[in-house]
This record gives sequence, structure tokens and C-alpha cells, in this order.
Amino acid sequence: MRGVSIVGIGHSKFGRRDDASLRELAFESVKEALEDAEMSTHDIEATVIGVANQFLTNQTQSGAIVTDYIGMNTKPSFTTVAACASGSAAIRAAWTAIASGLHDTVLVCGVEKMTEVSTSRVVEILGFAGDPKWEFRPTGITNPGTYAMFACAHMHKYGTTEKQLALVAVKNHKYGAINPVAHLRREVTVEDALKSRMIAYPLKLYDCSLISDGAAAVILASDEKAKKVTDTPISIAGLGCATDTAAMHDRADLTSLRSAVEASKQAYKMAGVSPEDIDVACVHDCFTIAEIMAYEDLGFCEKGKGGNFIEEEQSHIGGKTPTNVDGGLKSKGHPLGATGVSMAVEITKQLRGECGPRQVPGAEIGLSHNVAMHGTHCMVHIYRR
Amino acid sequence: MRGVSIVGIGHSKFGRRDDASLRELAFESVKEALEDAEMSTHDIEATVIGVANQFLTNQTQSGAIVTDYIGMNTKPSFTTVAACASGSAAIRAAWTAIASGLHDTVLVCGVEKMTEVSTSRVVEILGFAGDPKWEFRPTGITNPGTYAMFACAHMHKYGTTEKQLALVAVKNHKYGAINPVAHLRREVTVEDALKSRMIAYPLKLYDCSLISDGAAAVILASDEKAKKVTDTPISIAGLGCATDTAAMHDRADLTSLRSAVEASKQAYKMAGVSPEDIDVACVHDCFTIAEIMAYEDLGFCEKGKGGNFIEEEQSHIGGKTPTNVDGGLKSKGHPLGATGVSMAVEITKQLRGECGPRQVPGAEIGLSHNVAMHGTHCMVHIYRR
Repeated sequence: MRGVSIVGIGHSKFGRRDDASLRELAFESVKEALEDAEMSTHDIEATVIGVANQFLTNQTQSGAIVTDYIGMNTKPSFTTVAACASGSAAIRAAWTAIASGLHDTVLVCGVEKMTEVSTSRVVEILGFAGDPKWEFRPTGITNPGTYAMFACAHMHKYGTTEKQLALVAVKNHKYGAINPVAHLRREVTVEDALKSRMIAYPLKLYDCSLISDGAAAVILASDEKAKKVTDTPISIAGLGCATDTAAMHDRADLTSLRSAVEASKQAYKMAGVSPEDIDVACVHDCFTIAEIMAYEDLGFCEKGKGGNFIEEEQSHIGGKTPTNVDGGLKSKGHPLGATGVSMAVEITKQLRGECGPRQVPGAEIGLSHNVAMHGTHCMVHIYRR
Repeated sequence: MRGVSIVGIGHSKFGRRDDASLRELAFESVKEALEDAEMSTHDIEATVIGVANQFLTNQTQSGAIVTDYIGMNTKPSFTTVAACASGSAAIRAAWTAIASGLHDTVLVCGVEKMTEVSTSRVVEILGFAGDPKWEFRPTGITNPGTYAMFACAHMHKYGTTEKQLALVAVKNHKYGAINPVAHLRREVTVEDALKSRMIAYPLKLYDCSLISDGAAAVILASDEKAKKVTDTPISIAGLGCATDTAAMHDRADLTSLRSAVEASKQAYKMAGVSPEDIDVACVHDCFTIAEIMAYEDLGFCEKGKGGNFIEEEQSHIGGKTPTNVDGGLKSKGHPLGATGVSMAVEITKQLRGECGPRQVPGAEIGLSHNVAMHGTHCMVHIYRR
């Protein structure tokens, strides 16, 4: 199995992007990645596109349209889907294509255009990722509802508080405010967060991530090729991918995502590292409780101590494991298919030392944790300088 | 790059399956594949699911639901999308996962449930695979319309006749009638086909493939593992994947699919064979004209001679390149995500010599050709006994 590295990164501005269609967002990120790698489309052998949702733009082949628009015809391409982890699935598929020797260079683009429909329609559409037979049709439950159940269970079992949830939002907005590509670039206070309107108890508006348009791109190459292309290749040294039940009622435990625990075990083992070795992480904070569960599921802290971890600022820069110092899904934004690729872009920038005021000093090993829905899939990638 | 072989196959009955939901169809095919390989889910390391369309069943994570229902949690899984070629994309992704050494065994399941909505809604939904900006929204064009353009261009340039188109339907129904898993198991005559009602000139009802429910599954293993599991591994010796413009107006030629020509070149080169070596083929006859174009694009006959190829029965058993002797999309059916995997199942059965009355005697090398929409993607796989 040969090694695979990231040699180019690109990122559109996340936000409400009325100025750009889905294909134009993809192009923004791809153009930047090609420039970053000092490559042209002629140097790329294939593409994998991550797009999660066909309802948001009423089209079933966004991947084909992106491949066409970015000038990659007639080269190989397909799309990966794993709900909010679709971008990480694309990286995984591209990684195996290179590791197998089928290709030397593959471009991955994750993209989603979420603001063409109303907010209430977005919430409904995102609910379609649940189990239609047992949950979203009979009960009408959508994502805030499932994560509210996780939060209630965590508060009940471990004494996690609403204030600890709010502190996740405060941290992520603090860093998002200094990330030029973030959607909502403003700081918030604990008081703002705690008094924001209730969405699904105990989750308030500021506990929820954003509905954003955006795209991110990475160029992967075999280690051999990477050395020729760049002085700062970032190796994808560990891959983990695991799944869990579609229906919440089949879960034994609502305070942890089993898929995240399993995926991280795979990734740590493959990379030969342990949680203590992670210098910087991007985790899937679709809701604030999700970040607290991620600290625990990834082994950054003991089970049940996630609330303390944020309270002690262990996930801030200067803490034990700086997490979501790009703003996370909460402040940077969460354009579904783009999110996993955006995490890879951020970790690459961190390991290259290019993050300016939000740089984690001396970061050498990074981790991304990208979750589909309520943990139906989780993909964990480990990166090394 | 290590070799990858098929060690197990399974196939649901295709048809209007009011008796089975999407997850139940998937289970039918997976159960059969596990039994065929004499394996249990414990022997499988990961799954890749091919599902094309989220609108047909109003759910965006069918892949997660299938993975759950077939008992493959918490192992790795994701879904591939490339419209009607989604199943072949799943095989490609699984192939690279094994060839890379990441996994030794991967289960691929392609599935689609198309009959939960009305036929007119299916046609509308399938149109969402076109270019929304330039074609399906402004003009309302859907699949029969695009293939009607191909047919008109082919008739104009090469003198292909409506009768030659009808002969493709006659052949495919002849073989579909003796395929136990086929949707429409009855023979049709040239006269039936020619007098069936017009859909989009020159394509009549009998020139169009079916709207079907169904699933198919294959178990892939490294060659080394495959030899331990079965006496009849079928090697996937060549892979090709290519793309083309989303908008028809960007095409230089409407008598050929550039993606099919490019994908077949890649696959022939990788497998070290030429069109003359192919003993049996499954091609994407979503419309009869598509099969005639496939003969030419794959090099089974000269460009423009596809009409003669069917007239001379060169694609019948006993002819030069027996094609779609399982009934094809036309008679066996076309449950989008299942189709590419169904082709792999059929070719495996042919190369194992298990096809009974529709067996191509002594078949050693087979080919599948799976097209997305009007050629936005084409995946060609070459199989060896």
C-alpha cells in the first residue's frame, strides 16, 4: 500500500452565496487548489466529488455538472454520498484510488448549495437522512431533535450543563471570527448563547450549526509524486470509517456515537498514533453537544468529561487538543458535502503553519472527524506533516 | 497493484416489487451473494452501496439504511452516485479499496426502488440528472428526448432504421423471457415494437427500457483471498471510467458517447485485450439506440455499422459478440443503482458457465458498459475467467 498526501488545497468563502451557483462554488475552490499546487487540470488524472443532497438544488447529478464545469471531462469521476460526511467519503475513495496505483493524482471537491430553498424546507430535507420507516415519517423528527436527545442523555448521565454547551459555541465563534472563509464571523458571549431562542430542548439557536453554501477542494497524490510537486506534502496517514443504526431506537447508548469510536480506533491504529499525539482537530460540531461527545469518542478526554474539557479550555489554542480553531460547523458553516473536505483543508493549513492568528504552534499531527446525520457514518482521518 | 476478483453474486427478482421495500430488495440480493460465496457478514470487511436517486423514495441516506438492514454495522460503508452508472461506480470504489490493500473483502450492493411514485413523476425525476441550468429547466427535456436526438442523428448520418432499433428490443426480450430474474419475461415481435405508441420520435414504447425495482450484489476479494474462497473466481481485469458534458449542446457528435469510447479504451488497455476478445457483453440499452451506439463505441463493429450488427444477429448467441443475453435494461429491467451490479452478476454467471439456456458457450472474457444519463459518465469493466 503506497502512501498518499495532500499537495493542494482550496476553499470558497462559506456563507449565503447568492452570487454563485453550485458549480461556481466548486470552481472557486478547485481553482485555488490548482494554484496552490501549481498544477493544471492536465496534471490531474481523476476527480471524486462529494455532494450529499439532491433535494437542495433539485438535481441528481451535481457531481457530473461540477466535473464538467471545472474542466475535468473526459477523465474518470464519480460522486460519494454519506450525508454530512460525503466529503470525507470522497477523500477516502480518492485515497484508495491512489494507494491502489490506479491513479497518481486525484482532485477531490466537496460542495453544497443550501440556500436556494427556505430554511424550514432545509430542515425538512435534512430529516430525509433519518430512517423513513421508523422515524422521520412516523414521528417527524429532524436533526435538532435527534441531537437534543443526545444532549438530554448526556446531561442526565454525566451532569453536562447548558452553559458547557454554550461554551463550545463561544469558542468556535471566537476562532470563526478570525477565519476569512467563515460564514458567521462574529464573536458571541455565553449570555448571548444561553438566551438565544429554544430550538429543541436543551439546544438553542446558538447550539446549532449554520445552513451555508460553499465548497472545498484538495488534490491528493502518491507520496512519490507529492515529493516532486511540493516541499510541504501533508500525509493522510490514517483512515477510519464506521457505521451505526439508522434508527435511534436501535442504539444502546445515546451519550456516544459508536461509529465515531470505531472509526477513530481504525484511524489511530493505521497511523500508529494515540489521542495524546493529536496537535489539532476538526470535529463535527453540527450541534454543540456533538463536539462534547466528539472529545470523548475520540479519546481526547475521559467518557463523560467532555463538559469539563471545554470549561477548562482544553480545546482552545494552548489547551490539550485545540479543536475547531477554524470556527467549526458552528461559525465557519456546514455546506454538507463540503464539510469533510473543508476539514482536510484546515488541517493541511495548520500542519503547514499557514493559519496566522489561529495557528496552533508547531502542529505536526492533525485529525478530522466527520459525522453523517446522527452517526450513521463517521469518517476519521489522521494527517501528518 | 494487487488483483481483485468476484467471489459471490446475488440478484433480486427485478420488477414491480410491491412486496419489498428498498432495504428488503437489497437484503434479497445480499443474502444470495453471501450464500453463493459461502461467507457470512463476519467475513466481509466493508460495503459500498450504489443508489442513484434520492427522490424516488424521498430519502437521502438509503445506503446507510441498507448497510444497517443487511447487518453490516459498524463496518465501513459509503454510497456512490453516478446516475444510472452508480452501481458500476460502487464496484470501482470497492475494487480500489481492495487493490490498495485497505480491505481484503468488500460487499457491493446496488439497489433502487422506482415504483413508489407515478410513472410520470419517475420521468420527471430522471430528468433531474440533466443540466438544470441549460436543459431540463429551460426546455423540460427528459431522457427519452435526449436519446431521441441521438437516434435521429444516427439515422440521418448512417441510415440506421426504425426496424433496426426494433430488432434490439426483439433480441433483448427473446433472452429476457428465459431469464428468471427479468422484469418483463415475454417475447416481442418486430411488428409489436414498430406499432407500439410513440414516446419521442423515433423512439416508441418498445424502444424504452423499464421502470423497475430491484437489487444486485457482488462480493469482491483480493485474488489471494479469492483463491481460498472459491474454485471459480472471476477477475475484474480492466476498469474504465470517463465523463462528458452535462449539456447536449456542448457535444461535437450526437451519434456516439465520447465517455463510452474513452472508458472502453482505458479498460481494454488495462486488461490487455481488444474488442475481438470479448465473448459476452452487457451494455446499457436504456433505449434501443443506446445499444446500437454501444456496439460502435466499444469497437464491436465499425462506426455507423451498429444497425447492420443487430440485423445480422452478431449480438445474438452464436454471433460475433453476444450482447445483453440476460435481457438487458429493456427486458430484465433497469433499477438505476442496481443495473451496473446486475451486469457484473450476469457476466460472472456467464464466465462460470451457469446461465443454462442463455449461456454463451465457452465464454472466457466478458465486458460491462454502464452509462449515466446521456453519457455524463460511462464505466466499462472487463472480466476474465
